[in-house]
Amino acid sequence: MAVYTDITDDELAALLADFDLGAPLSFKGIAEGVSNSNFLLETEGGRFILTVYEQRVDEADLPFFLALMRWLSEHGFASGQPMADRNGEMLKRVRGKPCAIVSFLPGLSVRRPTVAHCREAGAGLAALHNAADGFPMRRANDLGQPAWAPMFAGLKDDAERLKPGLSKTIDGDIAHLAAAWPKDLPEGVIHADYFPDNVFFRNGRFAGAIDFYFACTDMRAYDVAVALNAWCFETDGSFNITAARALVAGYEAARPLSDAERHALPVLAHGAALRFFLTRLQDWGATPEGALVRPKDPLEYERKLAVHRSSPDLVLFGTPA
Amino acid sequence: MAVYTDITDDELAALLADFDLGAPLSFKGIAEGVSNSNFLLETEGGRFILTVYEQRVDEADLPFFLALMRWLSEHGFASGQPMADRNGEMLKRVRGKPCAIVSFLPGLSVRRPTVAHCREAGAGLAALHNAADGFPMRRANDLGQPAWAPMFAGLKDDAERLKPGLSKTIDGDIAHLAAAWPKDLPEGVIHADYFPDNVFFRNGRFAGAIDFYFACTDMRAYDVAVALNAWCFETDGSFNITAARALVAGYEAARPLSDAERHALPVLAHGAALRFFLTRLQDWGATPEGALVRPKDPLEYERKLAVHRSSPDLVLFGTPA
Repeated sequence: MAVYTDITDDELAALLADFDLGAPLSFKGIAEGVSNSNFLLETEGGRFILTVYEQRVDEADLPFFLALMRWLSEHGFASGQPMADRNGEMLKRVRGKPCAIVSFLPGLSVRRPTVAHCREAGAGLAALHNAADGFPMRRANDLGQPAWAPMFAGLKDDAERLKPGLSKTIDGDIAHLAAAWPKDLPEGVIHADYFPDNVFFRNGRFAGAIDFYFACTDMRAYDVAVALNAWCFETDGSFNITAARALVAGYEAARPLSDAERHALPVLAHGAALRFFLTRLQDWGATPEGALVRPKDPLEYERKLAVHRSSPDLVLFGTPA
Repeated sequence: MAVYTDITDDELAALLADFDLGAPLSFKGIAEGVSNSNFLLETEGGRFILTVYEQRVDEADLPFFLALMRWLSEHGFASGQPMADRNGEMLKRVRGKPCAIVSFLPGLSVRRPTVAHCREAGAGLAALHNAADGFPMRRANDLGQPAWAPMFAGLKDDAERLKPGLSKTIDGDIAHLAAAWPKDLPEGVIHADYFPDNVFFRNGRFAGAIDFYFACTDMRAYDVAVALNAWCFETDGSFNITAARALVAGYEAARPLSDAERHALPVLAHGAALRFFLTRLQDWGATPEGALVRPKDPLEYERKLAVHRSSPDLVLFGTPA
């Protein structure tokens, strides 16, 4: 939730001069996204989000993200559509920083998803995967399984500070996942950050997804696993099997999983919990004491890890329905 | 620039249930206003700003502000119009805090006003004063001339810390203004915070004003004086007489000033500079070292005070045109 970059009316006018979007009518910084500055921009041509990319996003990845968003919106998936300027450029600069103007996507995210929301979210994720079929670019998942051991090597002291003894437990997770990680599941473009705040609903139905700045090429079932962690845990830390079944059923209604994908979901969810634990631990360790912006709690994902560790098979499927 | 209060989808739904605005379509925190939390809300019924009033605003004043905004919008002045719920209530509560839903006012504020903007701003301020004619409620200006001596009594150490010797100079301003302050000028509702970031333009023409949370009953010419300070100084600290004449001419085209009002403008501008110096000094003194949010610079208004002090007559009118 932040606006880091301040854009003046003159800078906005200079940026818009390259586009055919008409004169600006309204321009407001919005509290959305943690890595970028976002502005709601209304022009005579419509409503848009202007995103200014801050240091956390690697500029070399932006052409992939923007081309993907463009592809998805042209293939029937509701996401923001990046606007091209008169030279066909989607990636622009303002105040020396990279930026893009993306069509405004209406919709409301939900704070506490119901089982019905989980079913819709699963259906939306399958629609995203289906729309991404044939997208020609690739981007490696730099937060995928091979990255976890080197990431954690620099975070062991932070893990001990968070909870004494945790370092050894996480080493165990990393070793287990290295051995058990699936190899031959179908790959494609995945969202990789399909959390409730990135998914919009309208009147209870899936209405689109935003924030493709972790999107990459990886196993599609891993995206389902990320979503199961993000959508199907209760605030008390328990896993809601009914919600998980609904999410998977919603997904399978539009894109059936193979047996191999379905059986890999528990280990994929274990790995997905580790991935978010590690980046949260990184942010937590890097935040000075007393900082005004509190990082997301790594312990939330440590508790999810514990669930996956202790019930590796049961968790996602429960007893047969 | 802040969003202090976090509103969940359930809390928003509960609030909207009291209104006839239809279902919510989109909801985003916006970086606008320093004392309140503001959200851009789109429903089936239109676009609105939801403002949640934080501690800095006295709840007892809110009925005045909301009734004034309603009055202005019903009398042809472009400001946000507060929405009434089914019981006719404009002042509502969410998360235990007072809040209001106000119609969205499109428009862009300007960072560096040109002379043409100053003329339009003056015309807009006169339109505001004319539209407010007959508004039946009163609110004393709690930051007006009688308040300055008691305010400064608690800020002398801060003034010395800001600039050694300043305390005595400000005491001199306060004494001079107490003696010279005009008494019988026409009163009415004034905006009292008519700064460029509260004024919207569309294609270079005045398009409306927002943020009426300092509005009160006081001399209308004092509002012109506040605006002269806010709009007509260059970034190098010099006063732009051409801009000032344009602002006053824009104002007088819609509401001529009396001779008494016109001749009072220099002392009113001196007082208005002191008022903003004092509140900025207060915020500056109350901000801990190293805080992430930097308060507005009190020295900017100290420099404006110096201009008014040194050229009490020249400043606003210059040599006859």
